[in-house]
Amino acid sequence: MSADNDARHMRHALALAARGLGRVWPNPAVGCVIVAGGRIVGRGWTQPGGRPHAEPGALAQAGAAARGATAYVSLEPCAHHGKTPPCAAALAAAGVARVVTALEDPDPRVAGGGHAMLRAAGVEVATGVMTAEAARLNRGFLSRITRGRPMVTLKLATSFDGRIATGAGESRWITGAEARARVHLMRATHDAVLVGGGTARADDPELTVRGLGIAHRPVRVIAAATLDLPRGGRLAASAGQAPLWLVHGPDAPAAARAYWQGLGARLVEVAAPGGRIDPGAMLAQLGAAGLTRVFCEGGGQLAAALLDSGLVDELVGFTAGLMLGADGRPAIGALAPRALAAMPRFRLIETLPVGGDVLHRWELA
Amino acid sequence: MSADNDARHMRHALALAARGLGRVWPNPAVGCVIVAGGRIVGRGWTQPGGRPHAEPGALAQAGAAARGATAYVSLEPCAHHGKTPPCAAALAAAGVARVVTALEDPDPRVAGGGHAMLRAAGVEVATGVMTAEAARLNRGFLSRITRGRPMVTLKLATSFDGRIATGAGESRWITGAEARARVHLMRATHDAVLVGGGTARADDPELTVRGLGIAHRPVRVIAAATLDLPRGGRLAASAGQAPLWLVHGPDAPAAARAYWQGLGARLVEVAAPGGRIDPGAMLAQLGAAGLTRVFCEGGGQLAAALLDSGLVDELVGFTAGLMLGADGRPAIGALAPRALAAMPRFRLIETLPVGGDVLHRWELA
Repeated sequence: MSADNDARHMRHALALAARGLGRVWPNPAVGCVIVAGGRIVGRGWTQPGGRPHAEPGALAQAGAAARGATAYVSLEPCAHHGKTPPCAAALAAAGVARVVTALEDPDPRVAGGGHAMLRAAGVEVATGVMTAEAARLNRGFLSRITRGRPMVTLKLATSFDGRIATGAGESRWITGAEARARVHLMRATHDAVLVGGGTARADDPELTVRGLGIAHRPVRVIAAATLDLPRGGRLAASAGQAPLWLVHGPDAPAAARAYWQGLGARLVEVAAPGGRIDPGAMLAQLGAAGLTRVFCEGGGQLAAALLDSGLVDELVGFTAGLMLGADGRPAIGALAPRALAAMPRFRLIETLPVGGDVLHRWELA
Repeated sequence: MSADNDARHMRHALALAARGLGRVWPNPAVGCVIVAGGRIVGRGWTQPGGRPHAEPGALAQAGAAARGATAYVSLEPCAHHGKTPPCAAALAAAGVARVVTALEDPDPRVAGGGHAMLRAAGVEVATGVMTAEAARLNRGFLSRITRGRPMVTLKLATSFDGRIATGAGESRWITGAEARARVHLMRATHDAVLVGGGTARADDPELTVRGLGIAHRPVRVIAAATLDLPRGGRLAASAGQAPLWLVHGPDAPAAARAYWQGLGARLVEVAAPGGRIDPGAMLAQLGAAGLTRVFCEGGGQLAAALLDSGLVDELVGFTAGLMLGADGRPAIGALAPRALAAMPRFRLIETLPVGGDVLHRWELA
């Protein structure tokens, strides 16, 4: 029952929770570990689609051993009746003596109600264990609940001098195979992959998760104000294989709408002042549609719009050991002019070699 | 006498050798460790200015204990009579029984002669221990001997998107205080710091080693075809405090030459076709003047000229967690157009956090 043990078991619950990232939206990714007499008797995590929650799986594993045990849950157990009874009630009914959580669930249907339900049933409740780690893990869910929009990770794979293509437009490949595999893994831990129309036109990317033995298919979102996207290419051909959402402005031609809808794409209309998708309005719509974690892979204009609006929560850079020079295509378009001291700064999370490239991850400071 | 012990002692000798980097030109930086009965009885390294060599210091420390001992020297001992007798003769005269070296000295005055002199005196000689590490350490010396030019380290401190100033020209500060201190440390391990005229005009930098308690003063080299440099600024004011070499073309006006010479600068005239310093000719002259390790800090045009000519041996990047956008000043000017697969690639040596920034080091693959 020491604080050390609490932190250790919560770390375990967080590791289980991470398995759900990208697959549980609009729900949070939660992990649960049940410990009796120092032994782990049950483990569970939110299942794909968001149901069942983490607690029922762990309780089922624990069986009678749950009586008198401690349950570590990375987020406050739910208190509302949905398709299943609330998890707080299930923990109490199983005879769990103590529940340790990392974070209160800000969802207004919970918001302390889970903790209160447990206490009312005579269960000891301790909260605030590894809160920062849990908040980072569920940054997407928390962002959707508290800000009405998904979190945004912006990924840029560039040359040493910050370019994403040569002056002639060649971009395959700047970074190596290991870095590209890592990108596929990152896609898999997000609910959606987002690119701008320029990138879709230049690269006609599939934006799927490949080569990892992972069946999960993140939503593919393309921001293209006039739906001017390549027809008959890879993106169009794969429209039936993985969800494809097209964010467009009010002026998108009816024929283009019909073409993409006919292929199975979902159309999302947002404001597009001056012919450019309003990035805040786009994210609000994506949040309303349930997305919690969005992985943006450029291009430069969309990245600049997100940065200018302060909508990027995490940055991921892959830097390759070659130079493309000032004629190369920039990773980030022009930003609104600001004094250097007024530029938003990101805080370094980690840097490590990946194959022959450097991976560096940052979060908004 | 095991291979493990040999490598361990040679690593020690290399660590001692590194103390000389930046201070011993035109000589190599060498370290020497003398081991008798498993105990280290003498340590030495090349002294500032290149003399004395590493071996006499280690032998003086060892005294009578050198008899029958093993000497680990990071480079083949010299065989030529200069101001002092050759080190190979000194080792033999002291009764050293075995000499282990990492690398043959390609200097034509040595070139195997040191090893031969030792063997002729009955000393056992083993070579090739930690050769790659020794070659990397003395890359500058080896470059000057075998290619007639110093090695070039190109350092770029940029925003996440590879910019060195805002569109308005603001550049102080993109990276943090720790990164800037690390740059001063890197300057101190090079013989010279090199920038282009554009950077000198924009920043009027001192290019000295500051804030580290290091008295060493690398040569400051400015490449400025027409000697169009700020008069009466920091650079001019410090001309008497640290060596200042100005590389210029044949068309530099006499008045400018006279001004800078009057302040104590050394003028180096090289070819400047089309009004641009020929980077290969410049490095050949710097090599002829004795420089072995040059630390180039930009700007974009000089960096591009060096890269286009394949003259950059090591790259050092500092990446900050902010974006300056496509209007920011690029770190590298335009390069000659090439297919992506034909671009020179650098191999990652290491990446680590330095303060809030990422340091990444690369070498030509």
